[in-house]
Amino acid sequence: MARETCSLLTVVAESVLEKQLVADLAKLGVTGFTVTDARGGGHHGRRDSGWDHTGNIRIEVLCDPGLAERLARHFEESYAGNFAMTLWLQDARR
Amino acid sequence: MARETCSLLTVVAESVLEKQLVADLAKLGVTGFTVTDARGGGHHGRRDSGWDHTGNIRIEVLCDPGLAERLARHFEESYAGNFAMTLWLQDARR
Amino acid sequence: MARETCSLLTVVAESVLEKQLVADLAKLGVTGFTVTDARGGGHHGRRDSGWDHTGNIRIEVLCDPGLAERLARHFEESYAGNFAMTLWLQDARR
Repeated sequence: MARETCSLLTVVAESVLEKQLVADLAKLGVTGFTVTDARGGGHHGRRDSGWDHTGNIRIEVLCDPGLAERLARHFEESYAGNFAMTLWLQDARR
Repeated sequence: MARETCSLLTVVAESVLEKQLVADLAKLGVTGFTVTDARGGGHHGRRDSGWDHTGNIRIEVLCDPGLAERLARHFEESYAGNFAMTLWLQDARR
Repeated sequence: MARETCSLLTVVAESVLEKQLVADLAKLGVTGFTVTDARGGGHHGRRDSGWDHTGNIRIEVLCDPGLAERLARHFEESYAGNFAMTLWLQDARR
C-alpha cells in the first residue's frame, strides 16, 4: 500500500486559546486533530512570557500541505502578535 | 558522531486500545515506545466519531523504517476498521 | 512568507531529570521548549529499565540545526549512560 505525503502542523499555545483554535480548525476545513496538555518556557511568539512554565496546549493536525500552510498563516496572523504561540510544519506519510 | 536514519511512527487511538497496542508492539519486536494522553476530534479512521473530544492516547515508536511500516500496516489492518485511529510515519535521525 | 528550515529535537527521559534538562537548555542558549508528561517502556538508553511503564517527560526544542545537534550530544554524553533516555532529531519549517 503506497502512502500519501502530507504535512504535520504542530501548534503550541497558551491553554486559554484551545477553544478558539479548535473552532478555527473546523471552520478552515480540518477533519481531525490531536490535543495534548503541555508546559513550556522561553520566548514563544512576540509576547515575551519569560522562562516560566505555564499551561500550554500542543495541537497536531495531519493534512495536505496546502491546508497546513493556510492554517499556519491563519494562526500566525490571528494570534502570534498577542499570545505566546509557536508552530512548525513537517513532512509525514499517512 | 554520525546519526542513523530511522522512522518515527505516531499512532493516535482511543485510550481503550492502549494495552492491546502496547502488547502488539512487544510481539512485533519493538524495544521502546512513548505514550502520552491526548484528546482529539474529527474523523479519525473509518468510524465517524464526530467532532467531540474523547480520551485518546498518542503512541510514538522510533525504529528502523522496515519495522515502522510493518507496525503501521498491522495497526491499520487490525484496528482502523473498528476504532477511531490515525497514524503517520516521519523520518528522524537518532 | 518563506519559512525557515530548522530542527526539532525530541528528548524522552525519566521525569526526575526535568529540572536538570531544562536548566541545561537555558545554559546552552535555547529560547523556547515544550514539555509533556509521558509514560513508556522498552530499553531506552543503556540502562535497561525493562518493559514497565514509568513516569517520563517528553521535551521538544525547535531551533537551528547546529544548536539541536549540540544539545543532542550534550544530553547523550551527560545522561544517557546513567538514565533511561532516548532522543531524536527531525527537520521542520517555521
